[in-house]
This record gives sequence, structure tokens and C-alpha cells, in this order.
Amino acid sequence: MPGNILPVEYKGNYIKLLDQTALPEREVYLNITSIEEMYDAIKRLAVRGAPAIGIAAAYGLALSLNQFDTDNPMGFIQKLEEDKAYLEKSRPTAVNLFWALDRMKACAFRNVSDKIPVIKQKLLEEAAKIQDEEKESCVRIGEHLLSMLKVGTGVLTHCNAGGIATVQYGTALAPILLGQERGIHFKVYADETRPLMQGARLTSWELLNAGVDVTLITDNMAGMVMAQGKIQAVVVGCDRIAANGDTANKIGTYSVAVLAAYHQIPFYVAAPVSTIDSNTLTGEDIVIEERPFEEVTNGFGKRTAPENVKVYNPAFDVTPSDLITAIVTNYGVLYPPFSESIARLTKRENGQNQKAGDKE
Amino acid sequence: MPGNILPVEYKGNYIKLLDQTALPEREVYLNITSIEEMYDAIKRLAVRGAPAIGIAAAYGLALSLNQFDTDNPMGFIQKLEEDKAYLEKSRPTAVNLFWALDRMKACAFRNVSDKIPVIKQKLLEEAAKIQDEEKESCVRIGEHLLSMLKVGTGVLTHCNAGGIATVQYGTALAPILLGQERGIHFKVYADETRPLMQGARLTSWELLNAGVDVTLITDNMAGMVMAQGKIQAVVVGCDRIAANGDTANKIGTYSVAVLAAYHQIPFYVAAPVSTIDSNTLTGEDIVIEERPFEEVTNGFGKRTAPENVKVYNPAFDVTPSDLITAIVTNYGVLYPPFSESIARLTKRENGQNQKAGDKE
Repeated sequence: MPGNILPVEYKGNYIKLLDQTALPEREVYLNITSIEEMYDAIKRLAVRGAPAIGIAAAYGLALSLNQFDTDNPMGFIQKLEEDKAYLEKSRPTAVNLFWALDRMKACAFRNVSDKIPVIKQKLLEEAAKIQDEEKESCVRIGEHLLSMLKVGTGVLTHCNAGGIATVQYGTALAPILLGQERGIHFKVYADETRPLMQGARLTSWELLNAGVDVTLITDNMAGMVMAQGKIQAVVVGCDRIAANGDTANKIGTYSVAVLAAYHQIPFYVAAPVSTIDSNTLTGEDIVIEERPFEEVTNGFGKRTAPENVKVYNPAFDVTPSDLITAIVTNYGVLYPPFSESIARLTKRENGQNQKAGDKE
Repeated sequence: MPGNILPVEYKGNYIKLLDQTALPEREVYLNITSIEEMYDAIKRLAVRGAPAIGIAAAYGLALSLNQFDTDNPMGFIQKLEEDKAYLEKSRPTAVNLFWALDRMKACAFRNVSDKIPVIKQKLLEEAAKIQDEEKESCVRIGEHLLSMLKVGTGVLTHCNAGGIATVQYGTALAPILLGQERGIHFKVYADETRPLMQGARLTSWELLNAGVDVTLITDNMAGMVMAQGKIQAVVVGCDRIAANGDTANKIGTYSVAVLAAYHQIPFYVAAPVSTIDSNTLTGEDIVIEERPFEEVTNGFGKRTAPENVKVYNPAFDVTPSDLITAIVTNYGVLYPPFSESIARLTKRENGQNQKAGDKE
């Protein structure tokens, strides 16, 4: 039966994890029963997507501590610190990993005067809370977007900002997956997203699995399908939003944004507010990671370019805010001028919105 | 030693053919000694590119007839008709194949009163003439473009319109390969060109081989490299030009043209005048071939998308004339309004340009 996929699911004495490396050929679930297995799963990208990694790590830590048999509070805390440091090494560039593990540690310290079985229980609850909050965030983003997209709309998406990267609904895919559950259907075009093919391997798999009408295209077909009138909205996720609204996302997003502007198609960025980095003033301050050339020349086990050819392989690009119609967050929809709407949201988030007639 | 590659070379008792199916992994040449071998080479795409196919077929026919031992003119002509019909079946959609073989037949008929050894010689000369004319056409296109591009310019190209598809210089690659011979260097970015990867497999190989500074990118990086100021001109080949200048070329060309317009980068189409089809009024009249879905889902020898996913796989797209800065032909450079400049060129070609003060 089709349905949305949970990438991470706590099952009591094990954690059920979708092995995303086997997609799209096979839908394999791992039963994670130890912290070492979780470390390995994160490291080899069996679980991917910032929110999903954070959730997996939080449950991994809770599972390990639950298995740890001690009456000694100091020993318990020491074990927590060791496990945390160990999991942090699994994917050192994943900000959500650190954030989730820090939150787990804070939970343990808050409850340190309790009996150890109680702390264990609180940690499991904290991991579940992280997961629930991420899911709630996806649902809210989906609700906002559902109110903005007409039924039957042709939606183009790039890369994978779906349920398997987050919890069940994703960000960019949230209106589609949530809509599908409610009988509100869209016609989705998924860019395959070279070089790593997240659109082909993951997005099209995930949407097909949920029963959504999805058509796979190569990245360079986006312009043509827009010109043919097949697309009424573009929705993408993102990795970081600067204070002025400039948005870093998977390579190719910028080209899609330019194409959308040319065809007068709205371009929506879907992201939780945690993605906004007010310390990054503009897109120019975002450092773009360059990835190994083999991803381009030997993408899928077969060499498709001459040896020694120079390759440029940036993992992300920056879409300037003037190409973005709206940024759809879990706390509401931001419109241009983004420097103002983002500043207002950030202020409000910091609990300062009561001050001096700050209007929304 | 680096140098331009001849895809087809007549060597007396055999034809030396670059096996393009082995690229970029191996540079393999076939020694074609029979018409059956040439049929097979064309059929399995060892030789590709409209002009190169025409030349290969012409030489294949000449070779076969040269090997045919007869004193009987009727028997000779009958053999020519048989060979021609046989080769025409090797790639029935290739217009240049029919054009070149028709031209060979016309040559034989023009010289039918000569002795058979003379006709054989004339046929070999006709094939060489077709090749020379195609080469001359490439050189002229290259000369025009060289006069338009500043030294050191960053040039983006899409797909392969190079020497291995034509004769030695190609169309879009003509200024680059010709310039390279003369010490005029450019910095080329080659789109890999999904799904069939002609940019990665052929263009980057060909340019690397000629010593050109070439960087391979995935199609979805084109926007980013333009935004970074790395591209000062886009040059592409094309498959068909309508009377109003609308141009059909490999899928993805349209997206590149939109991106170029957005970044105010000139977008040049390089093509021999034979590519202009005055009977096609606009791009809307061009039927776009859709190709098998496996090219997208199994492109790299490994499945990269779920089974049963819907795929849209048009082989070409149409770039409307308003996105084209100039069409560079072997007979000169056409500027907008293209319906007028194309009409003038077509008239002149038809020898009607003496009439009624038609200004150039």
C-alpha cells in the first residue's frame, strides 16, 4: 500500500532505519541494535538529510544509554559523553547531528538528579520530541504551501527535500505528500539532479511510493517543460538562508530559479526557520563546498568523461533573493523584501516582538 | 601529440573510422574494408553527426564499387543502386545519409558514358569533394566566429558540434579548434548534456585531445558559472533552423539560451546553411522526437530511478529566435530580425539576389 515513508522509527529495543543507499533499486530497512550500527549507518549515508540525521543520532544515543547497565550517575554521564563524542564523528559536517546530540545531553543534565531508569526514559522521550517537532515543522510548511498552490498544479522540484530527509513529509515535498493524504493532487516534475541524482533516486521514488503523479526529467529539460506550460510553481528546499533572503541549495537550484523568473512561474523555498542564518548577511558570504570530480566523471560506476579532464563540481549554488517569490517556513510565509520579513521573524523568535509596535 | 581528429579518413583500400562508441575510455580506429562493415559502423553509431555520416556513407559506397569487378556498365549501375539502398537502411532517419548517397548516384549517372575505372575514380573524388566541402563549411563558420569572440573568452557549449561529428573542426567548436591551431585560446566550459552525455563523452574528449582548456560541468551548473562571470559567450550547433530563426537543438539548449539572456551573454548558433529549413515557418512546426525512457533511468549502466517511474525524454528543444544573438553560417553571419536575414540568404542562395535591389 502506498504511503509516506518514515526514514527513522524507534521500535523499543531497536531502531528501524530506511537504507537510502539501496534506493531506488531496493527498499531495505536496517534494524539498528547498537550505537556502532548507528554510527556506521550515518557515516555511509544510509540515513541522510539534516533533520533525519539529527533524529537518528538522538535515538542512537538514547538506545545505547538504555542498554547501559549501571547504578552510578557519574558512570552514566561519562558513558553519555563518550557516546555523544563517538556519534559526532560519524558525519562531522552535519550541523543537525551536533544540535540534536547537544539537546540530548542537556536533557540528561536537566534530569541528572533523577534515578537512572528515569533519565533513560527522559532521553527516549527527548529523541521522540525532536522527531515530533521536526514532523510538526514539515506539516506546518506543507499547510502553508497547500494554501498557496492550486489543486492540479504542475510543480517542479529539484533534489530531494522529502520525507526521507526529514520526517514523513519533508519541506519542499510537504504540500505534495500532505495533499496526497487529503486527496489534493498535484502533477510533479522531478529534476534528476546531477551529479548525485537525488531527484531520480529519491524524490521520484518517494513520490511514486506515495501514489503521487510524478514525472522524472533530466535537469536540462526544466526550461522546456516550463515553456510548454506544464509548470505553475517551483518548490525547493534549502540548506541555508542568509539574512537578506539569498538561499543556498543543491547545485542547479539557481538555474531553475532563473528559468522560473523568465517564465513568470512562482519560485518557493520551503524551509524551517532553523535554516535561516542571520549571521550570514548575503549569499556572497556562503562558502560553496566543491566535491570530488569523480561524482561527475564516474557517477554511477561507469566512466563517462575522459581521464584527466578538468571538472568543476560545486555541491551548492546560491539563488539571490530577487528570484524568490516567497520563503515558506514553519512559522509562516515570508515575502520580499526578505531582509525585512526575515528580521521581523527573527526578532519575534527571540521573544522581542512585544516591543514597540513591531508589525507583522 | 594533440591535434584535431578526423572521424572518417579514406586510405586507399580501406576507410579509417574513429569508433565513437569507445569514447571517452579508448580511442579506437576501425579499418573499414567492406560495405557491410560500413553499414554496421553507421548502424551502431561508431560514426555519428550528420555530416560525418554522409561522408562515411559516400566513401563506403565508393569503396564498395571500387572493389566491384565488372566491364558491364549496366551491372555497375545496378550494383550502385543495390549498395545505395543497402546503406540507406543503416540509419534511416539521417537526412545527410540520403543526401550524400543521392549525390554519389548523380555523379555516377553524370559520368555513365565513361569507362568503369573512370567512374570508380570519379566516385572516390565525389566522396572526397563532399568531405572537402563540409570541412570548408566548418572553417568558414570558425573564421566568422573567431572574428566575433575575444581572445581568452570563456565559452560555454552544449552537446557535441565538434570535428568528430563533421570534419575536423565542427560547427560550434570550429572557432575553438581553429583558434587553437593559430594560438588563439579560449576557456571552454562543456555541459555534460544528459541523458546521452555527448558533452562529457565527446566534446570534452575532443577539446582535451586538441589541447584546449576545457572544464566539464553538469548541465545544471551552467547558471552558476554564468553568474560567476566565467562565460562571455555561448556557442551551440543545431539540428534545424526555421524560417523565422527558431532553432531546434539537443535538449537543454533552450535552458542555456534563457540563462544566457538573463546574464546578458551573447548566444550564438553555429550551423551550415543546409541546416536552415525555409519550409518550416517557426519552431512550433518542428516535431520533437521523444526517446526511450531507459536513457534517463539507466543512463550509466546502472538503474538510477525507480522502476515504473514516468519519464519525459524529448531529444531536442526549440530555442525561439528572440533568444539568439546571431546565427553563424558558412555563408555569413545572420542577425535579427532573422526572418528577414534568413530570407535574404535563402534568396541569394537560390541565385535570385540580383533581382530588384535586394540589399544585403
